[in-house]
Amino acid sequence: MSSDSADEFETIKRLFAPLATSADARGLADDAALIDGRHVVTTDAIVEGVHFLSDDPIATVAMKALRVNVSDLIAKGAQPRAALLTLIWPNARPAEQIELFAESFGGDLAYFGMTLLGGDTTSTAGPLTISVTAFGEPLSERTPSRADAKIGDDVWLVGGEIGSAWLGLQLRTGAMALEEVTRGRDEQEARVNTAALAGQTPDYLTLPGKPFDAEAAWLMSTYLAPFVRPECADIVSRYANASMDVSDGLVGDAGKLAAASGAALKIEANAIPFSIPAERWAFSGGDFRKLITAGDDYVVLFTAPAAARAELESLPGAGALRLTRIGAVEAGEGVQVVNRQGDVIPIPAPSYAHKLGR
Amino acid sequence: MSSDSADEFETIKRLFAPLATSADARGLADDAALIDGRHVVTTDAIVEGVHFLSDDPIATVAMKALRVNVSDLIAKGAQPRAALLTLIWPNARPAEQIELFAESFGGDLAYFGMTLLGGDTTSTAGPLTISVTAFGEPLSERTPSRADAKIGDDVWLVGGEIGSAWLGLQLRTGAMALEEVTRGRDEQEARVNTAALAGQTPDYLTLPGKPFDAEAAWLMSTYLAPFVRPECADIVSRYANASMDVSDGLVGDAGKLAAASGAALKIEANAIPFSIPAERWAFSGGDFRKLITAGDDYVVLFTAPAAARAELESLPGAGALRLTRIGAVEAGEGVQVVNRQGDVIPIPAPSYAHKLGR
Repeated sequence: MSSDSADEFETIKRLFAPLATSADARGLADDAALIDGRHVVTTDAIVEGVHFLSDDPIATVAMKALRVNVSDLIAKGAQPRAALLTLIWPNARPAEQIELFAESFGGDLAYFGMTLLGGDTTSTAGPLTISVTAFGEPLSERTPSRADAKIGDDVWLVGGEIGSAWLGLQLRTGAMALEEVTRGRDEQEARVNTAALAGQTPDYLTLPGKPFDAEAAWLMSTYLAPFVRPECADIVSRYANASMDVSDGLVGDAGKLAAASGAALKIEANAIPFSIPAERWAFSGGDFRKLITAGDDYVVLFTAPAAARAELESLPGAGALRLTRIGAVEAGEGVQVVNRQGDVIPIPAPSYAHKLGR
Repeated sequence: MSSDSADEFETIKRLFAPLATSADARGLADDAALIDGRHVVTTDAIVEGVHFLSDDPIATVAMKALRVNVSDLIAKGAQPRAALLTLIWPNARPAEQIELFAESFGGDLAYFGMTLLGGDTTSTAGPLTISVTAFGEPLSERTPSRADAKIGDDVWLVGGEIGSAWLGLQLRTGAMALEEVTRGRDEQEARVNTAALAGQTPDYLTLPGKPFDAEAAWLMSTYLAPFVRPECADIVSRYANASMDVSDGLVGDAGKLAAASGAALKIEANAIPFSIPAERWAFSGGDFRKLITAGDDYVVLFTAPAAARAELESLPGAGALRLTRIGAVEAGEGVQVVNRQGDVIPIPAPSYAHKLGR
């Protein structure tokens, strides 16, 4: 059972956990549940104005609705198989967009090898709201929960980079100008990328009143429709003790894993896999703590025995999947982010509460 | 895949059916899907202002959210087992109500022998929206779809009465006064019932500015939280060729079953099980066609071979479950409602589009 903020999470857990009388529900403390131990099931909703902006393209909204669920399946070491779609459509939104939604959702289902099992549609006077329930097939006998980190485990990220989606969101909302996000950029390199991609991307990846910029387009695309990589499920299923997806900020989500496991996570700031633009932004005056507490990363955080380290590091494709060891599980509680000298970096607000708006 | 209106249903079916590449999805033409043939799964959302009123008690909203899904499981001959709950909570609604919601939802889960598997919570600037995915265990090898009615089958209803929820909604919204709904009532009998129940029901079952009225309370309660009876699943699993729940109006839903089965349904108006107040209302000047085209009945419509008729009629508990033969499956298409003389009664708007508001 997931929710938007840490406080709310505690309330929900307290109120609803007694209703979860089956072991398959994992006390609602996990991102997914089991059915008969043979299927992994997860459900996540996205709401206009909370998880996406009203003028986000309907095609990427459809992708996001599915992918935030696929992300949970991957983090449980499961192969995505099927989905139920509940589409709560505003009276005021053009009905023609439903067709674009269906086309895009269908394309994504096909990409992930999933089938649509059923769903529900209804109208609303409120925001567009999309609830997806996704089913996956566990790739091994054991489906890792958040609660199984062992002291001495390494802490890993796999599937992508941290902070890009947050920078993309800043660009989308206009909270940061392109010049601020790309401060310190090598103009020569920027021109090469841009020339290669210009004209090949949808209009919504160009900022209003600006020429096309490949880096901005890429950052915005990671916010609009997170890249989630089913190949990571195999790594999780083979190596993870504990695992979850990072969707509400690395530090906050690491804190949830630490709490569920009854242990502490120490994360080395310099080991975190930032994207090139995110790292440059942080080294050009940006506060890197924004990147590790922001939402929408949709990568996998897992812990694995230190004995598996060499094997993990030599996995084929590890680089492409950005498989990165970022810390260790220790006795204690909470999350510490440390610098190269081992000093603790204070993090004022570790988690991201989904409350969009400009 | 269900939706609010016939037109919308066709659009959704056309757009999304190609995504349902598994036989388990039944082409999205059914109320539920299968997982591995071993689980029945259904998902239905209810939206404030569409499926319930803003001032409906949060306790009954919780029940309705679960029961509209349980209704689908029962109609597929499945024993309810588990649910996922997605709660999209308005920023403006008091957070204290979440506790009442959880308590009521939990009570209903326990009543139906179900466990909460997981879910999601998020905030919204819009209406309260609740999406539930429910899982059931098929009671027999075969899970009846809408599409398996055979020419010559009897048409049955089981689980409750038609039209009461619509009358209850009229009372809740003030669209009809108590005096209009109870026109022709025997005052002596009304007083007896009312005396027995007064003081034992929640405040919201008393109409504003009126003394408690047992009949009004009962009608409103059928709208607020439909009575769904899991015992019906056993009957469905043993006898039904085709089956579905009646949620959007008897005639409209019968039309969906007829269309899916490639046959016609003839329904005898005088055989339809109306409640005492609904029947009295119709015989006192009300238009009975309102009752058979209104939503929120949540009973089961099924077809069964005529050879099973005697056995069905002699089932223990058939009376309490209001098991009633209401017509026959014939060659052709569509639904005909006929009177005692066999004359077709024209039905202008066979289905109920969920658009509440007062």
